[in-house]
Amino acid sequence: MRNLEKNNFKKSLLIVFSTLSFSLFSQAQSPAEGRAAPKNDQQLIREMYNTALRDPAAYRWLESLCLNIGHRLSGSPGAEKAVQWSKSMLDTMGLDSVWLQPVMVPHWVRGEEMVSVKAKNQSKAQVLSALALGGSVGTPANGISAPIVEINDWDVLDKIGEQGLKGKIVFYNRPMDPTYIRTFEAYGCAVDQRVHGASRAAKYGAIGVMVRSMALRIDDFPHTGTLRYDSTYPLIPAVAISTLAAENLSDLLKTNPDAVGSIKLGCKTLPDAPSFNVIGEIRGSEKPDEFILVGGHLDSWDVGHGAHDDGAGCVQSMEVLRLLKASGYKPKRTIRCVLFMNEENGLRGGRQYAAEAERKGEYHLCAIETDAGGFTPRGFGFEAEESVFQTFFEKVKALQPHFEPYGLVLTKGGSGADISPLRGMKGLLCGYSPDSQRYFDFHHTAADIFEAVHERELELGGASMAALVYLLDKYGL
Amino acid sequence: MRNLEKNNFKKSLLIVFSTLSFSLFSQAQSPAEGRAAPKNDQQLIREMYNTALRDPAAYRWLESLCLNIGHRLSGSPGAEKAVQWSKSMLDTMGLDSVWLQPVMVPHWVRGEEMVSVKAKNQSKAQVLSALALGGSVGTPANGISAPIVEINDWDVLDKIGEQGLKGKIVFYNRPMDPTYIRTFEAYGCAVDQRVHGASRAAKYGAIGVMVRSMALRIDDFPHTGTLRYDSTYPLIPAVAISTLAAENLSDLLKTNPDAVGSIKLGCKTLPDAPSFNVIGEIRGSEKPDEFILVGGHLDSWDVGHGAHDDGAGCVQSMEVLRLLKASGYKPKRTIRCVLFMNEENGLRGGRQYAAEAERKGEYHLCAIETDAGGFTPRGFGFEAEESVFQTFFEKVKALQPHFEPYGLVLTKGGSGADISPLRGMKGLLCGYSPDSQRYFDFHHTAADIFEAVHERELELGGASMAALVYLLDKYGL
Repeated sequence: MRNLEKNNFKKSLLIVFSTLSFSLFSQAQSPAEGRAAPKNDQQLIREMYNTALRDPAAYRWLESLCLNIGHRLSGSPGAEKAVQWSKSMLDTMGLDSVWLQPVMVPHWVRGEEMVSVKAKNQSKAQVLSALALGGSVGTPANGISAPIVEINDWDVLDKIGEQGLKGKIVFYNRPMDPTYIRTFEAYGCAVDQRVHGASRAAKYGAIGVMVRSMALRIDDFPHTGTLRYDSTYPLIPAVAISTLAAENLSDLLKTNPDAVGSIKLGCKTLPDAPSFNVIGEIRGSEKPDEFILVGGHLDSWDVGHGAHDDGAGCVQSMEVLRLLKASGYKPKRTIRCVLFMNEENGLRGGRQYAAEAERKGEYHLCAIETDAGGFTPRGFGFEAEESVFQTFFEKVKALQPHFEPYGLVLTKGGSGADISPLRGMKGLLCGYSPDSQRYFDFHHTAADIFEAVHERELELGGASMAALVYLLDKYGL
Repeated sequence: MRNLEKNNFKKSLLIVFSTLSFSLFSQAQSPAEGRAAPKNDQQLIREMYNTALRDPAAYRWLESLCLNIGHRLSGSPGAEKAVQWSKSMLDTMGLDSVWLQPVMVPHWVRGEEMVSVKAKNQSKAQVLSALALGGSVGTPANGISAPIVEINDWDVLDKIGEQGLKGKIVFYNRPMDPTYIRTFEAYGCAVDQRVHGASRAAKYGAIGVMVRSMALRIDDFPHTGTLRYDSTYPLIPAVAISTLAAENLSDLLKTNPDAVGSIKLGCKTLPDAPSFNVIGEIRGSEKPDEFILVGGHLDSWDVGHGAHDDGAGCVQSMEVLRLLKASGYKPKRTIRCVLFMNEENGLRGGRQYAAEAERKGEYHLCAIETDAGGFTPRGFGFEAEESVFQTFFEKVKALQPHFEPYGLVLTKGGSGADISPLRGMKGLLCGYSPDSQRYFDFHHTAADIFEAVHERELELGGASMAALVYLLDKYGL
């Protein structure tokens, strides 16, 4: 028990009181005929939060998406089902339009996988918990086997060079740095191993790579994710191994430097497949040709449910439209929910969307992406082209007091991958920023399931985004 | 995947840069002879965070406390073991003193428990997932059985009165309000049912009570917790039933208003038992007779591991001393870690500590309590006697910039139960405030186990408190 209930009761009275007395930014409005007085900003925002917390549609949607469909890599049957499912959900919401925007996407499929290591003195190989990296080439049917060279530093890789790496398997084992407070920074400083490791090793004649999973926790979940081949060098197979497997492998190599690694992968890249971005919108009453976008990505990796990444962002984006409609607010601008296809391994959906928007001259006053997990909201980050950023950000900062009752901070920097191709159109870009401590326990793994998402945390995020959309529409930039 | 690694890498460079350039409040100090230049505030705080995140002692201590000892209700063998364990841990830390402060505590023990309901048309009673409330009297050996009256409002209870309640079991079923953003507020507005429900029902002749668990989630974990009897009325047995059981019972009563509830409890209160607060301190170099206290409570309820409530707070408080010592900082004041006994059902430890402090004239410049779970830190709340609060809080607010890299906010209001008896000594009282969304999923249940605490979230809390203690000691109030 924390505190006595009397103190808490007094505190809650204080909070209710301060909520009622919060009138900064609220505008006096004349009551419409025959109706109750319009809500002020504080009331309307509070109502959207209340609706989300009492009647959590995003959470129910996420349950349906995760448990009835599950993971949904671009080009897969799951992705196709998710497109149809999300369109049908949007269709029930009384929006002004719902449609599918066609886009061709990469189509990579996982196959048989077996990764192991065997020291000379061992009678049997040890299986390493592993997943092929997305986009990896497969191996010959019997796999590949070679001694393993552990690398924790690019300089060391370059120094060892062809002499030490030719014919070998490179094992990248530089951990994410736990001292970053925001775990995305730690990810950003380690993920180069996963993205570029294969080609940088192939340059020196290596025949395969194993990459320590992008995670802070030591456990046995391998974390997949995209790689990028440099076509200058041979395309060699690449897998992620769990952090536990990486620790054990590193220990083994210390005493058995000639241990032999084996990788067998049946994965392959098929021809591009047709797919869709899924879009729903509430048409603006005054400036229908100006847009505020809120979106996440519908595709996921092909393990788990893609619950935090990014089922959460999809259902939160849908929730924004629901909350705005339920509030009775009539937006001036068109509010669009976009569920992007193919963020994980191509960004084709984001590029297609931006190309279409540019072709039609659709000015996006702001695009908000939610793709950092369904955890407790901490704030929003904003960016834009340099020429417009300062003006925008001053307007944004003026909205800060509205978010204080909800513990949110509006900061510079950080938006999202899917909306990044809109940057050239000189609108404001925004990334929803939830708490990041647990995100890399789940990211791109079989552990990223519905049950890992907390109902209140998810819903607070949807309501926070609805509040931001409302304020940006009402006050402009 | 969120963002491309290049963007993240740029962002992290920016963060590193802004960290390095953060010099507000740091004081120029002349290098001591033959040693490296003393660290500035920013560096010292950053180092304490780094130590906590790289080498998480609090998390390892929590594992040991939870898995080797487990729950530890006042007067129980677990509580005795926890006293010895925590003293032995503090003894290894190279502190200036470690000791046990004797205190007599209530000694309530749970016994056999069976709670059920049976509608007339049912052949078999349905068992309700339940736990006796702490301090409840037991029932006769065969239990009690009576029709159930559901109450959601005190006014209704008073209106129904003796005529409707005499000989009945009262079922309190007013849920926690999900629309509070901080869940402690929702708890504060609902827990009166658990604390006062038994006596308020007994006043009208009821023979027992069932209380809906204090939780926001619908699940099958009953949440125990303390009750307070008003000795004016008969002492009647009281249990908490899970939120799921409460929902089901309420549904059943709608169609079967004459359903009969049964409660059988073997719990009882034994004579007060001897126990201890566990205290360790680093002696101040300049003002050894002035104190900064950081503490949590060592006792827990008698289910689960008491991991969030309040094993987390205990190990974080110990971590504060470890981090300060590891940093090389020599505090001016005495920094004391106090693991209070009996917060849950008596507050005897907190009262004893304050009485001793007053007797010895030990002025506590600040007492910080951590008893709100081991989740991601959000900030600190401060309170004090009115005559001194404003002066203190202005000094505190000046420390805010130090906490911005860590996402913490310093606010008015809210400290902790164990330190509340120190209020009369006119020091500053402070409550550590982590994210509250998940807390009432675990609070006082069998689900409050070690595995429910996240290593980074726990450690960030310990480091945040160490930073606050350091700054308060260095700059005073």
